[in-house]
Amino acid sequence: MIEDLIIDWRRFESNESIGHAVRTADDVAVDWSDGRRSVFNRFWLRDNCPCARCVLPLTREQVFEIIDAPDELTPSDVHCDDAGRLDVVWSDGHHSRYLPGWLRAHATDATSRAERRAQHPRSIIWGAEHADRLQTFDHDALMTDDVALLAWLESLRDTGMTLVRGVPDQAEALLGPAHRISHIRETNFGRVFDVRSKPSPDSAAYTSVNLPPHTDLPTRELQPGLQFLHCLVNDATGGESIFVDGFAIADAMRRERPACFATITTVPIAFWNRDDRTDYRWSAPVIALDAHGDVSEVRFANFLRGPIEAEEGEMPAIYDALRLFQAMTREARFRIERRLAPGDMWVFDNRRVMHARREFDPQSGARHLQGTYVDRDEMMSRIRVLTRQVA
Amino acid sequence: MIEDLIIDWRRFESNESIGHAVRTADDVAVDWSDGRRSVFNRFWLRDNCPCARCVLPLTREQVFEIIDAPDELTPSDVHCDDAGRLDVVWSDGHHSRYLPGWLRAHATDATSRAERRAQHPRSIIWGAEHADRLQTFDHDALMTDDVALLAWLESLRDTGMTLVRGVPDQAEALLGPAHRISHIRETNFGRVFDVRSKPSPDSAAYTSVNLPPHTDLPTRELQPGLQFLHCLVNDATGGESIFVDGFAIADAMRRERPACFATITTVPIAFWNRDDRTDYRWSAPVIALDAHGDVSEVRFANFLRGPIEAEEGEMPAIYDALRLFQAMTREARFRIERRLAPGDMWVFDNRRVMHARREFDPQSGARHLQGTYVDRDEMMSRIRVLTRQVA
Repeated sequence: MIEDLIIDWRRFESNESIGHAVRTADDVAVDWSDGRRSVFNRFWLRDNCPCARCVLPLTREQVFEIIDAPDELTPSDVHCDDAGRLDVVWSDGHHSRYLPGWLRAHATDATSRAERRAQHPRSIIWGAEHADRLQTFDHDALMTDDVALLAWLESLRDTGMTLVRGVPDQAEALLGPAHRISHIRETNFGRVFDVRSKPSPDSAAYTSVNLPPHTDLPTRELQPGLQFLHCLVNDATGGESIFVDGFAIADAMRRERPACFATITTVPIAFWNRDDRTDYRWSAPVIALDAHGDVSEVRFANFLRGPIEAEEGEMPAIYDALRLFQAMTREARFRIERRLAPGDMWVFDNRRVMHARREFDPQSGARHLQGTYVDRDEMMSRIRVLTRQVA
Repeated sequence: MIEDLIIDWRRFESNESIGHAVRTADDVAVDWSDGRRSVFNRFWLRDNCPCARCVLPLTREQVFEIIDAPDELTPSDVHCDDAGRLDVVWSDGHHSRYLPGWLRAHATDATSRAERRAQHPRSIIWGAEHADRLQTFDHDALMTDDVALLAWLESLRDTGMTLVRGVPDQAEALLGPAHRISHIRETNFGRVFDVRSKPSPDSAAYTSVNLPPHTDLPTRELQPGLQFLHCLVNDATGGESIFVDGFAIADAMRRERPACFATITTVPIAFWNRDDRTDYRWSAPVIALDAHGDVSEVRFANFLRGPIEAEEGEMPAIYDALRLFQAMTREARFRIERRLAPGDMWVFDNRRVMHARREFDPQSGARHLQGTYVDRDEMMSRIRVLTRQVA
């Protein structure tokens, strides 16, 4: 059966078929029906053999280890079989067959790689004008309908910022939508944390003071990915929420002040969070870039910074960059300000969107939010599975 | 009170005192009693002002934001006060006082920085000879005695590999020692996972086949830090545990095959884990280096690898490095092999130490392990707090 050969839960449909397949030196070249040529490295191809001896049928996990191929491995017979598959007999006698759809989807020629890269979802950055266009989602719909769930998660992935309406007015109601994604990311503040002023606060979050724009837990190697903030009561004067897209700041800084951008993406800044039972510390650049040079993360909380560890001579450039970053978090062009009402829940990418809170007057009325975290890995996994099923 | 000025839970004792403090251009220079000179950047020094207006006394978190210092800030008066503190009056009138112990502990001159760097704990790498010297710890001692707990955690931090003896023969007994550190790192396999062969496995771990050396969950952006494996029953034939120090392999590869080391520390390798409900993927180099060029992480599970995404021309070098890495995980010089007995629990750094399991015969007897994870951040936090209290 052709499908037995697929070591994946996806189907690999392709409009293109294999026109011709040949050995080229030690490797294999495939000429596709649309004229594209893909050359496959011999070890890469052998490594990806989907046969039942190389892949455990029960779990679809690879049992063959490429170190067990001989150094001098070569393809000895290469052709396109009657079912349209690439058929390779290796110099050690092993026999591999590759579905054309799978092969096209993973081809390592430059055109195929550029095509895949272009399909990666891209972040949609936003600023103050976004306040009127903020995407809202209905609690009951995303709890029961996978299409609504997927739409919400794709918006979260791409814009980093969503509002869910109609969340039940109950403690821990935020766990419903969170568990539609996956399990909770627990922290020392618990699985669910209560944001209100406390008599013996272990964090500025648990006081009534102004909190400048920040990400939560920059003190951890991996900051929590998604943050959920559910409003149960908001009768106090003040306490408005402010959100800033850190990716928009990064984008503007890269264009407007490239020297500061170079500093802020490379110099590690220390973040510390200490109380009588814990002592967390991590150092990393405020803006992180991925292997493609794209902005992948923002990490910042002024109230959790430790002393900067750098050479004396580097300090002027570091403080230029840091002060510019802080100044940009205050610029009106990047900020949206909203007041949460009971039943509302912000869900946002904590590694991208900084949140702030205006000072509130705890004597003027009650204010109670509940929060929790879910990691980005879980969001991406859920999107992939929903896309299998829904699309 | 001098202690009110400390924005930390530590005491900063110092044998050195401030001999002399002066303005140097815009910055501040301190000459210490042992002759060392530390120059402090003006913004760095202002940023670290510990006064009650700059630091929230309740949480010891910084409320002052350095962007609020004027661009032209300079120290206008600098001296050592009668209590031995550095006393700075700034050009905008703000007044800061710094304890000499704190200042010395965070000084950014080259000598002080090198001194701090030398005090960082260093990994102790090990190979086959370690089998006889494996550190064992007593369950009851580390449950009740903070000195024993600290000794265990320091061994885990430095060698990555410990054996705990005398763990009660009960399900979830492994949570006792885990909670002595902190909360659990939950995954899609649950908070506690059972390792035995299952009729419908979603991972090769839940079969009886040979599992080559691997780290758990390389498919996640942050691999779980500490892995706990508690043996409840081990009556089956086979199933011996093998451990390999990935940092030792990295160290040997760097010396013996530098070109392969350069490849394996830079080329991202894809790891995938899919079942009918989840689809996790992450790509990262098999060996990660920190900002100092030291090895900080190993990430590898052959059975979870996805197709390598790289240019055709890079493939030969990538497969050279990958095949060498796999070959080294099989070398006797790096491997220790042990059989777990009921009551034994391995606790090891899953981002460093690869574990393997020999095939076992599920017909020959029962085999049941329980596992859980705790992140490295939690171990480091616990060590810091215990060091405050115990030392």
